[in-house]
Amino acid sequence: MTDVRITAVHDGVRSERPDTLATEEPMEIRVGGPGQAAQAVAVTMRTPGADYELAVGFLFTEGLIEPGHVRRVAYCDDLGDEEQRYNVVTVSLDRAFDHDRLHRNFFATSSCGICGKAALDDIEVRCAPVAEGPEVRAEVLVSLPERLRSRQRVFDRTGGLHAAALCTPDGDVVSLREDVGRHNAVDKVIGDAVRGNRVPLTGQVLVVSGRASFELTQKAAMAGIPVLAAVSAPSSLAVELATDVGITLVGFLRGDGCNVYTCQERIRLDSPA
Amino acid sequence: MTDVRITAVHDGVRSERPDTLATEEPMEIRVGGPGQAAQAVAVTMRTPGADYELAVGFLFTEGLIEPGHVRRVAYCDDLGDEEQRYNVVTVSLDRAFDHDRLHRNFFATSSCGICGKAALDDIEVRCAPVAEGPEVRAEVLVSLPERLRSRQRVFDRTGGLHAAALCTPDGDVVSLREDVGRHNAVDKVIGDAVRGNRVPLTGQVLVVSGRASFELTQKAAMAGIPVLAAVSAPSSLAVELATDVGITLVGFLRGDGCNVYTCQERIRLDSPA
Repeated sequence: MTDVRITAVHDGVRSERPDTLATEEPMEIRVGGPGQAAQAVAVTMRTPGADYELAVGFLFTEGLIEPGHVRRVAYCDDLGDEEQRYNVVTVSLDRAFDHDRLHRNFFATSSCGICGKAALDDIEVRCAPVAEGPEVRAEVLVSLPERLRSRQRVFDRTGGLHAAALCTPDGDVVSLREDVGRHNAVDKVIGDAVRGNRVPLTGQVLVVSGRASFELTQKAAMAGIPVLAAVSAPSSLAVELATDVGITLVGFLRGDGCNVYTCQERIRLDSPA
Repeated sequence: MTDVRITAVHDGVRSERPDTLATEEPMEIRVGGPGQAAQAVAVTMRTPGADYELAVGFLFTEGLIEPGHVRRVAYCDDLGDEEQRYNVVTVSLDRAFDHDRLHRNFFATSSCGICGKAALDDIEVRCAPVAEGPEVRAEVLVSLPERLRSRQRVFDRTGGLHAAALCTPDGDVVSLREDVGRHNAVDKVIGDAVRGNRVPLTGQVLVVSGRASFELTQKAAMAGIPVLAAVSAPSSLAVELATDVGITLVGFLRGDGCNVYTCQERIRLDSPA
């Protein structure tokens, strides 16, 4: 977190006071295999912390590496500057990295034009359908935002961080990460699971602050997560992808209710009293 | 917008009802000069609509093209598929496009490592400081979210769209665009101004739903916008960049107040009654 002084205006009255900001810094992700020079594949603006998880999670959810092939993750050794050193993470694989794969993944659909259908097909090719997965009681589901917030309150004094958490079907928070970017928070919790050999995450629920986009649903699909629950609205393509790969997509998750967009058979409603 | 049927759970009771989703589709941006084959430079997930503005705005705010060099913007002619056709936009310039520039911009800081300072330096090199700009009364500023919402309500029935608007210092909404991605909404309003030869936008206020990131502040800086006001929190690097380029950065913009992080001299407080 970063401390600043601000001018607060409230009901027409100006006052000076200290404030705390969510820290945002660029991080470059490099990847290489044995005897292969590591090359930069992405720069992401992120909140420092859980950087190794972010690097591994990003590479995995983008379909660039398979879990189990990561040999070593490290900050860049050869940068003199301390500040820069901690903004470059190198992932070393136990086999050669195919840099062409990067280009193929990002422009996979270009040659034949591009559309939602092509994007969906591309993800489906790269991840197995989520066929199974636990039942989750609706009352557990709606309690998740509050459970996250009580954990998040410890970390987030800035009002500027997104959160992502993996939870058990009983609502216990397994891991929680925060970041200025929601996609980074998701990559961090998934990267943590990849590094601990816990993917596919077939028994868990991924909860995210904010909206559910195609990108977040893709990341959940790559990790085999059966239930994705967002505090706000999903997009059309998120719902299409969830339908295609068999993810239960929940939106507008609030204390008293939620909307279930896909695969509702995983949500169990206890009979009303 | 996309219509679906959902299962709503409220207070433990399940009901089926129709719902409306924000549409999300990939769009590929291609660029080329006279006698030069257009090449794809980016794929963004966006809400269809204002696609030409999005393409031009993205290329401009990323520092890839200068305003005034756009000769023609068009959907892709040579794609047979109707759905795909409207997801590929080609921007034709009146001079050759330097494709190396793309690589330099995205990995500009790689050779010497990467850090917030390098990212800031990079933006400062690419845009002139915002030296001037209007005074904005605090009471006008705090009224902006409600003014946006009243305009947005017409469009957004989904709860899933971000908005960006350009406003006059008196609070009149000059243009408003919505998108599943906040950066796209900003690129759309700026792209509209680029196409109308109205940049730099030295006399206007950019209002955005959600948070103010480095990326959004960069886009405002590229367009010479003097005041950036966000409904939620800014990040540390957004505040640093706003300081460096002379943008007034406002956050937590609510009906009764706001926080001013930088260049507060542009915010005028009428003496309390």
